[in-house]
Amino acid sequence: MALTDANRALTLLDTTLRDGEQRAGVALTLEDKLRIIRRLDDFGVHYIEVGFPASNQRDRELFGRLAAEPLQNAQIVAFGSTRHKDLLAEQDTGLVELAECYAGVVSIVGKSSPEHVQKVLNTTLDENLSMIADSISFLVEQGKRVFFDAEHYFDAYKEDSEYAMQVLLTATYAGAELLVLCDTNGGALPHEVYQICQATRQMLTLTSVSAADMLGIHTHNDGGVAIANSLEAIRAGCVHLQGTVNGYGERVGNTDLLVAIADLQLKMGFQLVRPEQLARLTELSHYVAAIMNIAPDAYHPYSGANAFAHKAGLHSSSVVRHKPSYEHVDPAAVGNLSRIVISELAGRAALASKADELGVALPDSDAERVRLLADIKAREISGFSYEVAEASLALFLLELTGQEQKCFELESFRVITEKHEDGRATSEATIKLSVAGERVVSTGEGVGPVNALDAALRQAITRFYPQVEGFELTDYRVRVLDESTGTSAVTRVLIDTSDGRHSWGTIGVSENIIEASWDALVDSITYGLLRLGVGAAASE
Amino acid sequence: MALTDANRALTLLDTTLRDGEQRAGVALTLEDKLRIIRRLDDFGVHYIEVGFPASNQRDRELFGRLAAEPLQNAQIVAFGSTRHKDLLAEQDTGLVELAECYAGVVSIVGKSSPEHVQKVLNTTLDENLSMIADSISFLVEQGKRVFFDAEHYFDAYKEDSEYAMQVLLTATYAGAELLVLCDTNGGALPHEVYQICQATRQMLTLTSVSAADMLGIHTHNDGGVAIANSLEAIRAGCVHLQGTVNGYGERVGNTDLLVAIADLQLKMGFQLVRPEQLARLTELSHYVAAIMNIAPDAYHPYSGANAFAHKAGLHSSSVVRHKPSYEHVDPAAVGNLSRIVISELAGRAALASKADELGVALPDSDAERVRLLADIKAREISGFSYEVAEASLALFLLELTGQEQKCFELESFRVITEKHEDGRATSEATIKLSVAGERVVSTGEGVGPVNALDAALRQAITRFYPQVEGFELTDYRVRVLDESTGTSAVTRVLIDTSDGRHSWGTIGVSENIIEASWDALVDSITYGLLRLGVGAAASE
Repeated sequence: MALTDANRALTLLDTTLRDGEQRAGVALTLEDKLRIIRRLDDFGVHYIEVGFPASNQRDRELFGRLAAEPLQNAQIVAFGSTRHKDLLAEQDTGLVELAECYAGVVSIVGKSSPEHVQKVLNTTLDENLSMIADSISFLVEQGKRVFFDAEHYFDAYKEDSEYAMQVLLTATYAGAELLVLCDTNGGALPHEVYQICQATRQMLTLTSVSAADMLGIHTHNDGGVAIANSLEAIRAGCVHLQGTVNGYGERVGNTDLLVAIADLQLKMGFQLVRPEQLARLTELSHYVAAIMNIAPDAYHPYSGANAFAHKAGLHSSSVVRHKPSYEHVDPAAVGNLSRIVISELAGRAALASKADELGVALPDSDAERVRLLADIKAREISGFSYEVAEASLALFLLELTGQEQKCFELESFRVITEKHEDGRATSEATIKLSVAGERVVSTGEGVGPVNALDAALRQAITRFYPQVEGFELTDYRVRVLDESTGTSAVTRVLIDTSDGRHSWGTIGVSENIIEASWDALVDSITYGLLRLGVGAAASE
Repeated sequence: MALTDANRALTLLDTTLRDGEQRAGVALTLEDKLRIIRRLDDFGVHYIEVGFPASNQRDRELFGRLAAEPLQNAQIVAFGSTRHKDLLAEQDTGLVELAECYAGVVSIVGKSSPEHVQKVLNTTLDENLSMIADSISFLVEQGKRVFFDAEHYFDAYKEDSEYAMQVLLTATYAGAELLVLCDTNGGALPHEVYQICQATRQMLTLTSVSAADMLGIHTHNDGGVAIANSLEAIRAGCVHLQGTVNGYGERVGNTDLLVAIADLQLKMGFQLVRPEQLARLTELSHYVAAIMNIAPDAYHPYSGANAFAHKAGLHSSSVVRHKPSYEHVDPAAVGNLSRIVISELAGRAALASKADELGVALPDSDAERVRLLADIKAREISGFSYEVAEASLALFLLELTGQEQKCFELESFRVITEKHEDGRATSEATIKLSVAGERVVSTGEGVGPVNALDAALRQAITRFYPQVEGFELTDYRVRVLDESTGTSAVTRVLIDTSDGRHSWGTIGVSENIIEASWDALVDSITYGLLRLGVGAAASE
């Protein structure tokens, strides 16, 4: 059933860092944003919307950093609103900030519903059109490419299709190159989206053929149908799709861009990213979840750990007999695995390339490699997310293959945290270890227990390994894995370390947060030393 | 836009206890199943599919219990497969069990795809038709009403629409009263479902007008579009909808029956359940999650805690000004609440409605309210994310407005975590506090430092506040806020607590993770006690 014109060019805009950050509880640092941008760029997204350049110090710095770091595939998009109703465009500080920012493309949101113009903006329908025209013209004159986001478009169309059309034409004439139809409150249903997009195209065609071919779609999931709404809009002729990784966003979230891409590419014949990029879909989904400190959803389409898991006896034996029975696509196409049929070849190939990447020599025997893979999988099931802690994976591989090098041996540690009567909180750690054949006892203080452990460890080993002075812990994050048992659940600690040029991630998993932190800390120091070719002093 | 014939009768079948139980990690007891059945019955679902009566001792007993417990609205449906290819129907123990069980209605699954008949069943196309006919005839003769589930129907239709039609007609002639089109591997897209359902109806009309009016739909979410697929099937003329609560099911899950019901009833004009039943949607969603021991998804359409949460300053002020701006339906219609998420950008209107929601009286003076807002913003800038810790916000508002009530006063605490020579890690906490005028010193052990503090605190105060025994910490999350300084950065701890009926979130922020955890813990206990009307014992 060839129902779509898959040869149509379709562009993708990721708004995880703008709309996605509206998800309750999410707060990203500058480094987080940069890391996500790099991954999205690798994945092949065409546009990355990163926020308003002047909303805070972080985003101001972000635009500065981006100017110095060219991307391979994607263009950066800044986001803002139409001018204030009582100002000229060039007097509006928001628009001036946008005009002056590094991004070559700017998204401008404006109202398309008469009711919203009157009740929320408190202005006239004509003034709203002027605000849209002035803002876009101003940015275009300043050399920007402009995307226009028509807020509440589907409600607006139902309310007054003629005014909605005027809004789109106004934006076109002012120089917008994309007209993004936004289902802002997420209330539209797929058949409505299809019909309204189609009707909009037809009406635009009467006045401006080019405008009819520059429609985009931006949907939210309040009715549980965001992805379907995106697909229907594209079937109806939209040429641009907006969404977020894993559908993160305000309220219940946005269109999940990754799921929509997989549907479009694997089921509707669109060529949006290269197959090898699509095969990193699962990795990208998990990576962004880890950076955002959100537990990955195991039941997520395409990328979830259970997306290709087969529990029913009936089903799993059928899967063995006839793979496509209960798998809608080949899991490898999106970088995921079937959990009943262990794809040994794919698994081993991935392991070999990973080991190569990490510089670990693997045994030649196929059977031993299968055993290695099983050991890693067992660790992952118990909570080790090696995908964001590759330094720990490298150390574990070295251990499994008998190539382990210890820089020191722990005997014991004790960490005391006290809240004193005067309200002060202090932490003190004492560790006993042997390094280069010598027994060392050292005590460190810190603002918290992990900081104290870090201080004590550095104090103990710096004499033997002065290089550790150059290692800085740049990130420390904690996640409880099985949340149903509260503070006695298993805790996963992720530490990122940098020596100024390179950075590496390590992991610790334990019921005890201090023990998990210690394990991640030891991996961090050990890996850093091995990277520099230092090690094995403990074995003397 | 009246696009659907909302006067058509539509029946609902919940299969949470059959297909939903296929979700990885779910295991229900007999009592669990009974509790869920009672709630589904109250909610107004027409059919409840509960499983195969003889699959195990629990389900055998379940059918016995159900026979003795009549339901108000729903009918119980047993589930099974067509007869074995080498047996007569009356020799097939599965069919005999179904014929003898209490349920008046039986769902029978059979194959509709030639490829599956040949590769998975290893039999001929004619034998498959006989299996379907014999099984249904046998059950009808035994006095059962029969629903026929056409497995892999959409793939089958694409493969060989004529055979798929023969399968449906065979089931009809044998006496099935519903023909349920199943997208078993979840791979179909909404436009395909619409077209195939419509084409199926048209083809059936040529042979059997009644069969054309007895189509049902059963979809899975592998492509992220299960709900849309259900809606499109109903638009195309299906009269029966199957799904599970919260979409629980094998792999990534089934159609979320509750979301589909809300869409159909609130947006498409169907009358499926009474408005007062629909208003229990959120409660039902959370109830089933609790019974299944799955954390409720805060980002779930309609029922999620954040489904009607507003974070962005722009949006939240608009919501206050014009409610429908960013809410696709009235949250009360599904028993949910609109929530203003207090974030850096929100203003006074948001504060007033939030205080109202939390039951905290605000000062009348505008100037004082502005000062309150400034105090909250200062806290938020220092890392307090009150949007996910509303219990701490309520306590902070009480403190700022001079209404604070302390349940106990901390003097000091000390937590020791040790990693011993034998590799064991232990934690022990000692706290000194005064409660109800008495000084208490208590020591607790735990799997980690926070668990130990929790144990010591509970031990100290349970004698004074026995209610704390009912409080359970259900989630504990840690995030380092400014990561540029690693382990000495500020740490934010979020704790969720539940008393079995309500749950509340609290927050602690400190450079020291243990102190931050303590603060969140104290807020958790204090808020829980104040909610119950207990408090102020410490001030005696």
